[in-house]
Amino acid sequence: MQDQTPALAPAAFPAPARNPREVLLFGLTPPRADTTPERITEIAERTLARVDALPIDALVIYDITDETDRNPQPRPFPFVEMLDPATYLCDGLTGWDKPAVVYRYVGKYDPDELRGWLQSAPDNVMTVFVGSSSSDAPARTTLSQAVQIHHETRPGLPLGGVTIPERHIGRGDEHERLLRKQRGGSQFFISQIVYDIGAAKNLASDYRYAAHDSHIDAAPLVFSLSLCGSAKTLSFLEWLGVEVPQWVRNEILHTEDPLDWSRQQALGAARELADFCRYLGIPFGFNVESVSSRRVEIEAAVALTHEIAELLERD
Amino acid sequence: MQDQTPALAPAAFPAPARNPREVLLFGLTPPRADTTPERITEIAERTLARVDALPIDALVIYDITDETDRNPQPRPFPFVEMLDPATYLCDGLTGWDKPAVVYRYVGKYDPDELRGWLQSAPDNVMTVFVGSSSSDAPARTTLSQAVQIHHETRPGLPLGGVTIPERHIGRGDEHERLLRKQRGGSQFFISQIVYDIGAAKNLASDYRYAAHDSHIDAAPLVFSLSLCGSAKTLSFLEWLGVEVPQWVRNEILHTEDPLDWSRQQALGAARELADFCRYLGIPFGFNVESVSSRRVEIEAAVALTHEIAELLERD
Repeated sequence: MQDQTPALAPAAFPAPARNPREVLLFGLTPPRADTTPERITEIAERTLARVDALPIDALVIYDITDETDRNPQPRPFPFVEMLDPATYLCDGLTGWDKPAVVYRYVGKYDPDELRGWLQSAPDNVMTVFVGSSSSDAPARTTLSQAVQIHHETRPGLPLGGVTIPERHIGRGDEHERLLRKQRGGSQFFISQIVYDIGAAKNLASDYRYAAHDSHIDAAPLVFSLSLCGSAKTLSFLEWLGVEVPQWVRNEILHTEDPLDWSRQQALGAARELADFCRYLGIPFGFNVESVSSRRVEIEAAVALTHEIAELLERD
Repeated sequence: MQDQTPALAPAAFPAPARNPREVLLFGLTPPRADTTPERITEIAERTLARVDALPIDALVIYDITDETDRNPQPRPFPFVEMLDPATYLCDGLTGWDKPAVVYRYVGKYDPDELRGWLQSAPDNVMTVFVGSSSSDAPARTTLSQAVQIHHETRPGLPLGGVTIPERHIGRGDEHERLLRKQRGGSQFFISQIVYDIGAAKNLASDYRYAAHDSHIDAAPLVFSLSLCGSAKTLSFLEWLGVEVPQWVRNEILHTEDPLDWSRQQALGAARELADFCRYLGIPFGFNVESVSSRRVEIEAAVALTHEIAELLERD
């Protein structure tokens, strides 16, 4: 442990990790927007019972948009409006006292709305700003406006950005994008779901050397991992734009217990990425999420989180 | 060990492997064509001293062409005409009594020349036919003519084909090409040098399921691995068309001992591919070669071969 600074954000973390340069998160989707308050309480209690014992640094709560502007293909799971992640955190997950990373699809909000939220957010809140998923989508606030608002309103609230390792394959400039976002105030990065480990390693490597050349300390790269327990989940992942390698696809479709197979793969991916980032000497982490709402897939994601915690020497 | 049939070719192998479905080869380039007979003997003796103790199933001897028809970029190592691999085997490597895989760039030879060689080749010889590296290159014999000549002349001489896993990324049909070659008589495949392990796994997986669907037994996929101990070797690999992932490139250029790093990576790649092919239940193997003629790189390739032999439970 060379460095005692917690990786994501110095102030926000009670430093539960043995190595504060290695982060573990768990990702959640809020309940549907039309859920009754009683039912929200119920769901939140069940969720807290699941995540409370997890050796994680923070919960991640997504801001769901109907991304049909990005993908004209029919959605394999129907889109339903979800509760605002900040509302769910404050009104539902009241028992959660560790940090929470609240995602913000900034284009959904007016600048004043975003400013108001930043001003009033509790102290355990961090945020990740996400730009529009397509350049044609009308944005009420652009990403650069949102960053400016954060800077003016509450620069102390830890700000993160998203990264797409697969985008690095064709363009080869994702690491420069990270450095730009870092200069704009991003203190950490959470990737979109990664199945292509080679792409993730390419990005981590290019980022590490570019940061070094620019005399910038690398910010934590948190890799999102999900499970894929069925053909339906596979098609949803692909609809979301996740690049699932052909050999993974084949096994999901052919193996007897795809969920168990997928969990072993995800753990192997975490081990490979952890080894590589430790070798590179950059802070990193994992964010485990389930894109499916099937109970078995969520429970497998919880089990995977424990296994990764062991890998990070926490459990 | 479900199957006692040696993987590459039943007749040719004394079955030294614990598992005959797992093959280990070592690749060599013949000396320059202008080498004196005395010097050829010297080189061959030194080579045999290196490879004789290797726990391999066969030597692979390449047929070198000046591939400038494929790549207009200047060659990082100068091209020199090399001795014919069959001549080198018979006149130089006389002490080698195990099988040898003699490569044939078929476009270099007249049909009669190829026929003559097939008729007179010693019994320990297997061959791999390679087509022209560019569709514009004038071929004295095409790949399909060569296969036909083999079929008419000496079908008992084990015939193999080449495969390019990276070609599978864009086109996605390399596995169909393998099945076609197999129907034409190919009994095994040797890949071009592989650094992109994801591409190799995609190919192995697609091939395994396509062979199963076509009721064909998968033929051994032999993955060629090489080391890369310097920036110069890296540029040669890239000139040859090998896809070196960005993270590997970065380390070759930045790490203190690239040769040692590269050996660890190659061993890790062999482990990952062996695990995966065993999981898939397909025969497979490795072919270790050095694209550089630097003594340290050749010696590291020998050391890597021993390490892979251990992985295949031979050493």
